[in-house]
Amino acid sequence: MSNNNEELDKLFDFFRVIDKEKFIGRQTYLTGAGRKENDAEHAWHMAVMTILLSKYSNEKIDVLKTVSMLLIHDLVEIYAGDTYAYDEKGKETQAEREKEAADRLYGMLPEDMGEYLKNLWLEFEEQKTPEARFARTMDHIQPLMLNAATEGKSWEEHGIHLHQVLERNKNTHLGSEELWDYAYNNFILPNAENGHLIND
Amino acid sequence: MSNNNEELDKLFDFFRVIDKEKFIGRQTYLTGAGRKENDAEHAWHMAVMTILLSKYSNEKIDVLKTVSMLLIHDLVEIYAGDTYAYDEKGKETQAEREKEAADRLYGMLPEDMGEYLKNLWLEFEEQKTPEARFARTMDHIQPLMLNAATEGKSWEEHGIHLHQVLERNKNTHLGSEELWDYAYNNFILPNAENGHLIND
Repeated sequence: MSNNNEELDKLFDFFRVIDKEKFIGRQTYLTGAGRKENDAEHAWHMAVMTILLSKYSNEKIDVLKTVSMLLIHDLVEIYAGDTYAYDEKGKETQAEREKEAADRLYGMLPEDMGEYLKNLWLEFEEQKTPEARFARTMDHIQPLMLNAATEGKSWEEHGIHLHQVLERNKNTHLGSEELWDYAYNNFILPNAENGHLIND
Repeated sequence: MSNNNEELDKLFDFFRVIDKEKFIGRQTYLTGAGRKENDAEHAWHMAVMTILLSKYSNEKIDVLKTVSMLLIHDLVEIYAGDTYAYDEKGKETQAEREKEAADRLYGMLPEDMGEYLKNLWLEFEEQKTPEARFARTMDHIQPLMLNAATEGKSWEEHGIHLHQVLERNKNTHLGSEELWDYAYNNFILPNAENGHLIND
């Protein structure tokens, strides 16, 4: 038996707990619109997108760090639950719930690894680095793409207005002006014009 | 409008196509055993595991390359379908089906990016580099962990024998002796002893 069994026990306990990310539902419909996406699928999709889109970042980014951030940034929802982008009431308590969840979740890991992931999550939340800004751009553009691909099904279900989408995306350009320009012209504007977003 | 629209059109077409990875079912049950895993969830889980387990690799690995390989290595199944680990008949035609799928899928991308991802997939298949060996170890250990966590539900459904699991995992140690040792002792052996795997 290995000397590292205690460390590996902690790591595999963590890997079994994060399996629950696959059960955390989001509001975005997948292409085909047959069902909604879960957090693990969302993270996977953004990670692949980042590998191919990193050159569109406004600032030079460390791709591994950005991908890692995206892969883990929603894990706190395992204990804190998902808060829908346009749920203003839920967002009031979101920060506190997620902070407690991060302590509990990352506390399971060997200290150095727990600190590393918790800091990566905090860095994403604080939006002060190029990697965090690009990751947020991915986090906003991926559901815009799927909403547009499903004729705004989720927007229509929730009666979302154009101004809400624009308010939510007011900083999306900070990660990539080019990708925000593309998303605005291809995913948002056509859906405001055809009525899938309420244009007020 | 951006000058890169043609490139971005190709990239976002690709991102919409790979959304289908979320519908490709695997045989592994998730913890709780309520439903089986899909390819996107599997890739996400292994990518997070790799970020925390890379130090256990037998040889030094480039973590971004390994994570990227794991995130994309099952994409060919969008066109070629999933082949169950113990489906000997399906495995006869698997290589040819997946080669055609790779040409079709990666042919959608701008040439340099398509070549990059296709070569990363081939590198995984050929198992000649440290990154490919460690990725394969992850690809085998992640379902072993979930099968053990669900009391061998998928193994029992398919009447899997211990010797089949050992044959499938004969090279798992090549990526990490320590992780193979841990998986053998914690995920495989107890399930052979308690009868979830048929011990012959």
